[in-house]
Amino acid sequence: MTRLHVIIPLRWSDFDAYAHVNNAEMLRLLEEARIEAFWRPDDGGVGGATAILDARPGAETIALIARQEVEYLAPIPYMRAPIDIELWIGRIGGASPEVCYELYSPVGVSPRVLFTRAATTLVMVTAATGRPERISDELRHVWEPYVEEPVSFTKRGR
Amino acid sequence: MTRLHVIIPLRWSDFDAYAHVNNAEMLRLLEEARIEAFWRPDDGGVGGATAILDARPGAETIALIARQEVEYLAPIPYMRAPIDIELWIGRIGGASPEVCYELYSPVGVSPRVLFTRAATTLVMVTAATGRPERISDELRHVWEPYVEEPVSFTKRGR
Amino acid sequence: MTRLHVIIPLRWSDFDAYAHVNNAEMLRLLEEARIEAFWRPDDGGVGGATAILDARPGAETIALIARQEVEYLAPIPYMRAPIDIELWIGRIGGASPEVCYELYSPVGVSPRVLFTRAATTLVMVTAATGRPERISDELRHVWEPYVEEPVSFTKRGR
Amino acid sequence: MTRLHVIIPLRWSDFDAYAHVNNAEMLRLLEEARIEAFWRPDDGGVGGATAILDARPGAETIALIARQEVEYLAPIPYMRAPIDIELWIGRIGGASPEVCYELYSPVGVSPRVLFTRAATTLVMVTAATGRPERISDELRHVWEPYVEEPVSFTKRGR
Repeated sequence: MTRLHVIIPLRWSDFDAYAHVNNAEMLRLLEEARIEAFWRPDDGGVGGATAILDARPGAETIALIARQEVEYLAPIPYMRAPIDIELWIGRIGGASPEVCYELYSPVGVSPRVLFTRAATTLVMVTAATGRPERISDELRHVWEPYVEEPVSFTKRGR
Repeated sequence: MTRLHVIIPLRWSDFDAYAHVNNAEMLRLLEEARIEAFWRPDDGGVGGATAILDARPGAETIALIARQEVEYLAPIPYMRAPIDIELWIGRIGGASPEVCYELYSPVGVSPRVLFTRAATTLVMVTAATGRPERISDELRHVWEPYVEEPVSFTKRGR
Repeated sequence: MTRLHVIIPLRWSDFDAYAHVNNAEMLRLLEEARIEAFWRPDDGGVGGATAILDARPGAETIALIARQEVEYLAPIPYMRAPIDIELWIGRIGGASPEVCYELYSPVGVSPRVLFTRAATTLVMVTAATGRPERISDELRHVWEPYVEEPVSFTKRGR
Repeated sequence: MTRLHVIIPLRWSDFDAYAHVNNAEMLRLLEEARIEAFWRPDDGGVGGATAILDARPGAETIALIARQEVEYLAPIPYMRAPIDIELWIGRIGGASPEVCYELYSPVGVSPRVLFTRAATTLVMVTAATGRPERISDELRHVWEPYVEEPVSFTKRGR
């Protein structure tokens, strides 16, 4: 029941002509959060208990994106302080883990605002063959502490 | 039961270091398709039966994005020919129409490949007040020919 | 003394929170103009007299960017009509051609506005070795009709 | 003779299909460096001796971009560590300061690599009128410690 916490600085270019973080750019923030939480550091060392979803070019196993779902709850205005992202694993599956996110206002800002809820379904793929790759027992074991109920979406039409 | 058809040229910058259209950039393509299908032309005239979802800065009613769902079925490689996007309205709702999309390989390429399925839930908002705005009977009438079953997603975990 | 003419549609995401085409995004427009003017079409055929600066992944010779200079003369507001870009070759050099650009308001809009002047110095490189590659006499011959005086910059401080 | 030092984390989306930081995206990095060095923090307080080039929406004086010049000296590969950017003011001018940059490999990486040299000419403009605004003596005084010779470009064709 442990969530991963990362902070991601916004960029001026995340904002569109409505002066809010653009809806597509939101997925860039999810992408950076995923990398920060799950990829190995530059030196190839283990960056944390979960640093094993490493999908950098050259990695043996890469993680392709199969599906994303995003609920935009409040527009994100320009601010210098990095936004605060919580990540967890909603389900591990056979080869398709689901990463869940909640994006919040910067740490220390009160009241705390939930901007966005999202989930990404990945597919673990052997880079050399392009084939889905069963998640090993070892990896399952490392991920288990971060597994929690999948994010609950409230805006689905059906 | 009529779908809208638009073609959107890719840009080199849509591709990430995997040499595929990036997952976030995909939402840019949906955004451009939506604008092409629904916004009024520069001269403010009516661009087509559906040119009334106009959300340009200055419009009285703007369309905010409440929710997006995307299934990435096949990676999109670099190509010069524009991709072929079909759009329709999955439901009209009170103030929240849902736009559905299927992204296909360029017209004339055989066999035709379905790259992506997606849906965007919009909220029609009065620009001056920020309040949701009930969709008028007139608008409903104009949209009705483009209403079809919502896109069927196959990768939802639940 | 022939210039190449291409038209490039803007995207909503080219605009930043000032509601103008962002300064960095301007280079995306130059990039697309260069590709449209100089790269071979998808079928590998010759797309025009100049379709030989082809730098797509897999090409034997690629064109790296060594230098860019841009003068922003007037902000570009949002518009649906594609902007009108003139390109020419300012000098051919040994391995480093310089592509020059002027970006104008859409064809048919009066009066015509010059938004941007720019130049890009490329380096032709053998993909396999990463080494600069002397431009062949054949290529020089093909390019000669498009060689014109380099763009004159007026805002250099020195 | 003091340079400003900022570090800017790369994003996966800065990389194009050549797996290098894209040439246009480079200007995003300059943009973020400029903001980090010169804009006031969120609370409107003074962020440092130079925090007065503040161009955020709502500011009385904004800084438009008149000109940019960039030399790409070495491609920037993907890395998790933030790149190291040095900024200084190459000249103050009447209303048009020039910001100069050198982008280096991350702090601690040896040997240090100079990736990019660049300069941006800004125009200080009164937001309400759009007119250039003479730089005050007070501002000149604050900037003086950061004035150094403008960056020397080596790849200009003329």
